[in-house]
Amino acid sequence: MPIPAPNLYPPFNIIRLSHVDYGVRDLAASKAFYVDTLGLQITDEDDTAVYLRAMEERGHHCVVLHKSDAPHVKALSFKVFDEDQLDKAHDWFMAQGHAVTWVERSFQGRTLATTDCFGMPIEFFFRMDRLAPIHQKYALYKGVKPLRIDHFNCFAPDVDKAVGFYNEIGFRVTEYTEDEESKRLWAAWTHRKGGVHDIAFTNGTGPRLHHTAFWVPTPLNIIDLCDLMSTTGYLANIERGPGRHGISNAFFLYVRDPDGHRIEIYCSDYQTVDPDLEAIKWDLKDPQRQTLWGAPAPRSWFEEGSLFEGLEPVASTLGASPIIAP
Amino acid sequence: MPIPAPNLYPPFNIIRLSHVDYGVRDLAASKAFYVDTLGLQITDEDDTAVYLRAMEERGHHCVVLHKSDAPHVKALSFKVFDEDQLDKAHDWFMAQGHAVTWVERSFQGRTLATTDCFGMPIEFFFRMDRLAPIHQKYALYKGVKPLRIDHFNCFAPDVDKAVGFYNEIGFRVTEYTEDEESKRLWAAWTHRKGGVHDIAFTNGTGPRLHHTAFWVPTPLNIIDLCDLMSTTGYLANIERGPGRHGISNAFFLYVRDPDGHRIEIYCSDYQTVDPDLEAIKWDLKDPQRQTLWGAPAPRSWFEEGSLFEGLEPVASTLGASPIIAP
Amino acid sequence: MPIPAPNLYPPFNIIRLSHVDYGVRDLAASKAFYVDTLGLQITDEDDTAVYLRAMEERGHHCVVLHKSDAPHVKALSFKVFDEDQLDKAHDWFMAQGHAVTWVERSFQGRTLATTDCFGMPIEFFFRMDRLAPIHQKYALYKGVKPLRIDHFNCFAPDVDKAVGFYNEIGFRVTEYTEDEESKRLWAAWTHRKGGVHDIAFTNGTGPRLHHTAFWVPTPLNIIDLCDLMSTTGYLANIERGPGRHGISNAFFLYVRDPDGHRIEIYCSDYQTVDPDLEAIKWDLKDPQRQTLWGAPAPRSWFEEGSLFEGLEPVASTLGASPIIAP
Amino acid sequence: MPIPAPNLYPPFNIIRLSHVDYGVRDLAASKAFYVDTLGLQITDEDDTAVYLRAMEERGHHCVVLHKSDAPHVKALSFKVFDEDQLDKAHDWFMAQGHAVTWVERSFQGRTLATTDCFGMPIEFFFRMDRLAPIHQKYALYKGVKPLRIDHFNCFAPDVDKAVGFYNEIGFRVTEYTEDEESKRLWAAWTHRKGGVHDIAFTNGTGPRLHHTAFWVPTPLNIIDLCDLMSTTGYLANIERGPGRHGISNAFFLYVRDPDGHRIEIYCSDYQTVDPDLEAIKWDLKDPQRQTLWGAPAPRSWFEEGSLFEGLEPVASTLGASPIIAP
Ligand SMILES: [Ca+2]
Ligand SMILES: [Fe+2]
Ligand SMILES: [Fe+2]
Ligand SMILES: [Fe+2]
Ligand SMILES: [Fe+2]
Repeated sequence: MPIPAPNLYPPFNIIRLSHVDYGVRDLAASKAFYVDTLGLQITDEDDTAVYLRAMEERGHHCVVLHKSDAPHVKALSFKVFDEDQLDKAHDWFMAQGHAVTWVERSFQGRTLATTDCFGMPIEFFFRMDRLAPIHQKYALYKGVKPLRIDHFNCFAPDVDKAVGFYNEIGFRVTEYTEDEESKRLWAAWTHRKGGVHDIAFTNGTGPRLHHTAFWVPTPLNIIDLCDLMSTTGYLANIERGPGRHGISNAFFLYVRDPDGHRIEIYCSDYQTVDPDLEAIKWDLKDPQRQTLWGAPAPRSWFEEGSLFEGLEPVASTLGASPIIAP
Repeated sequence: MPIPAPNLYPPFNIIRLSHVDYGVRDLAASKAFYVDTLGLQITDEDDTAVYLRAMEERGHHCVVLHKSDAPHVKALSFKVFDEDQLDKAHDWFMAQGHAVTWVERSFQGRTLATTDCFGMPIEFFFRMDRLAPIHQKYALYKGVKPLRIDHFNCFAPDVDKAVGFYNEIGFRVTEYTEDEESKRLWAAWTHRKGGVHDIAFTNGTGPRLHHTAFWVPTPLNIIDLCDLMSTTGYLANIERGPGRHGISNAFFLYVRDPDGHRIEIYCSDYQTVDPDLEAIKWDLKDPQRQTLWGAPAPRSWFEEGSLFEGLEPVASTLGASPIIAP
Repeated sequence: MPIPAPNLYPPFNIIRLSHVDYGVRDLAASKAFYVDTLGLQITDEDDTAVYLRAMEERGHHCVVLHKSDAPHVKALSFKVFDEDQLDKAHDWFMAQGHAVTWVERSFQGRTLATTDCFGMPIEFFFRMDRLAPIHQKYALYKGVKPLRIDHFNCFAPDVDKAVGFYNEIGFRVTEYTEDEESKRLWAAWTHRKGGVHDIAFTNGTGPRLHHTAFWVPTPLNIIDLCDLMSTTGYLANIERGPGRHGISNAFFLYVRDPDGHRIEIYCSDYQTVDPDLEAIKWDLKDPQRQTLWGAPAPRSWFEEGSLFEGLEPVASTLGASPIIAP
Repeated sequence: MPIPAPNLYPPFNIIRLSHVDYGVRDLAASKAFYVDTLGLQITDEDDTAVYLRAMEERGHHCVVLHKSDAPHVKALSFKVFDEDQLDKAHDWFMAQGHAVTWVERSFQGRTLATTDCFGMPIEFFFRMDRLAPIHQKYALYKGVKPLRIDHFNCFAPDVDKAVGFYNEIGFRVTEYTEDEESKRLWAAWTHRKGGVHDIAFTNGTGPRLHHTAFWVPTPLNIIDLCDLMSTTGYLANIERGPGRHGISNAFFLYVRDPDGHRIEIYCSDYQTVDPDLEAIKWDLKDPQRQTLWGAPAPRSWFEEGSLFEGLEPVASTLGASPIIAP
């Protein structure tokens, strides 16, 4: 099944991914990880939640940590182009039979909560509190010096279906992996903001969140983080990497937070603003697809992911299999 | 005069800057500079012209060098979102009283030639030959390893007028410098593609092209280029830098090609896709505006620029003055 | 068994490791690897041998490749402080009952060939042809941009014996690994030139050469090499890394040449000129000893090494075992 | 006047430069600079003095800051190979007619205080308190992440005389600048520890300390420091750079501490352990001598330096002049 032509005039205009809301069991432990180790900046906190932004962001938050009995993901959030797009989104989702609700979210304006084609909770908003720039306050930089949230990556039980849905609302495929036998999609990377992806999908029991990624400028940031984590008690939290993906050309590191939520640190992708950008096709059996070079991914990387709150994932129907480290 | 509110629904949709066409006196000398030293890749050449692309680009060219008796710039070119935008652009420019012509350009589809508010030649197109990706052909990387064209910077005799015009066609201001006395703009950075700028304007005799910039990922690329140029006969071609601008946060180097055309190598700017991004205002008298740190710019940097073919620049009416190296 | 006190007044003065002479089956294939990929510079070549130096070296060669029916290592060579040291070395080795011969070596002065405590061929010289500096000829830099040969690492069937021997001739231990049960040495790093090592020894069937290492200034050089090798047909030649060793703090990559000789690219160690530098002790069971972070070493890395010409290695008597990747 | 042949068997064995003792007027201000900004680690402090070490050092201190009414330098200190060398040094200096005293220095063993050929206070010791390694305590790294003290650079009123003296006690010249007209030395770089220099001399009113340098592994450390200093109130303390010297190939930055003492941050030099290393000669009129590339040095860099306590410097008799920034 080929990937669909991009929908250049989607029903409403999503600008970019915005933030993720993680349920975590121990706020102090999570702060030690996200703030002291990764280097995100606290923009608000109380006993139940911590709001974080990366160094070049002006929006109030790219990560929300809320205290929770069990680890989960509350929702993935996206920023739209203006207030009108929220109403267009509302009407489109309703017309498609998805539940829609206007919800209150701290530090945000009108927020539309709905679900994607798998029931995965997604939210849309336009207004979020804007903060003064800190990208030139170099004394604040620490940890991996994260500059901005870059993308979400989700397990999907049917990647063809995911691409169909997200393509319809304007996400454009930049790279994809096809199973040569079934001609079905194994994975796809789709964007709105002009990078390789805002959200990607990988075949597997889903919907589950595989990881949230942050962008850093150079591989040295990632090596600094490895040095720091391996000497401050976080060695076991380094799950995979560093290495380079064939897909997206990203130099990457995957780490796990204290609740097991997976965070990718990421650099070296490319600009994709051209509407006629040709998606790059990879064969599932190409070992350089996953790893242009570097150690193979461990089994946990293929199998584990964060559950969405109250949502039972379902198994994929596609039985093909990538190369897993022994 | 404050900067205008961004025009979020412009008359036609420009995606990004695309390429510059330089007139050069000695194609061989220019190739030695752009190909062997900077590391751009030749995509086509004959006795009269050389076409170049950067490492992550799939479009056929970001620089055209054409043999010419005198150095000049033929035009600055921009890519639009689809073919319809060309017709909308044609009609809008005609309605505004700008001369419009459909011109033939090698390796491109329909191309609209017109002028901006100062008579500066600008061109629009949607289709350009698309080439296979080379960003993972690491054996081809050399010189500064340029990844993509990033922006143009032009001298304008009236920056308020420039911002008025480009804002109307959708360029959004990200940072600007105001002369505190006259309240007029000294300089402005405006974007379409989600970086700090596609095109910027600086007060001065114009229109002239101050520089074309290429994006590299790390300051080490720039230091490598300094090492290479300073030991291969190009020391005098290094005009300014490396250093960091306050504006845009860019780590920069300015070099001059064999005809004096100025090229910037550039990294460390930030993502600007939010339509509600607040422009950052700088005072003309703030020395960290030009140079967060690093040696002050030499006089040539403030005064010299490339002429557009057949176009006589005019002096600016704004007499304010930035800080120039002694 | 504790490590011995350093012999600060050894019988003769070795300055540093100098070069390795590899037997290779296909000179063209080896040149493609060492010159085009690693970036060593050819200083002499004919049909039977190629001489190479790294970018900051003034001595004629740090690697000799000689055509050979089978891969092997001819000898490991060391530079002494002056001509007198050669005579002192000659007399000392003879007094210890080691065979000594004055041999002819191209581009070198008087050269003493002898053997170490395992019969491993080692050579000493003072004079080698001196070449003009090229470290500022930046146009010559390519591949991993190797600056200098850094160290040898050898399998030894008895590391305590190796340390006893090399310590006596002035090599000082900087770090070592002890088997906590037997109190015997598993591995040791010893230096003359003021870095972590000129020669190291690891428990195993020996004598065999585990690897020769080259020094580069930053991890980015190593990442560049991974990118290059993984896209030019050398992916399978990347054996281990990148990662950071606990021991020596080195950021490392291990690659295999076309004959299987192992080359390490290495940075981030530290200065060790203090005669009272305390050696750092590591426990064999400490997983961060081998790998502060990064994927575990593959089995080949523990088991494979280059044979010395005409020398049959013997098994180690120490049965302890480090952590091997599954 | 040619440089003398190196004295390979000097009267006593100096290992390396060790530390500098600066008089500073405000300990708190100096701590903010050396600790919070540069990133040196405090190893001891009280109301009158602060002791500092760099990240890979095991000796107790490389910088001592002592409270003083006026800025000055108390002495430059060197570590010798063993206790016997102290006695040999004592006897040699006494025989040469230099005043010698055994002095008490905190955290050090026997310490010999004497003067060089210009009366400049220099001290020698072998024992200093040894501290546990911190080079793998990555959470401690900050500022420019200085790894070790690298060298001193002094104004000398007669560089030929300086080279004569220091050469006699074993310092070997690696690079030098000659005034082509007078054939006198303008500057020289001399080493003991195997880098380009432990101590260098530049023509000028002296003896004065031009700067103390710290070694970092990559230019990115230096750029990080520029970013930090330029946004934390230290912009005016950045005096020169970054850039690359022709001499030594160093990538450099010069900053001034709160009392005006000059500190260099430095990387990219090369290994010099070969006793037959040929010194590199530069012409005083070669502009790439001082600056392979980068902005020219400001006048302050040529003229200002730290006084030694109680020592009146004298003017140089060599009137030649290098290239100074306008
Ligand atoms: Ca709150
Ligand atoms: Fe990702
Ligand atoms: Fe620019
Ligand atoms: Fe090694
Ligand atoms: Fe220096």
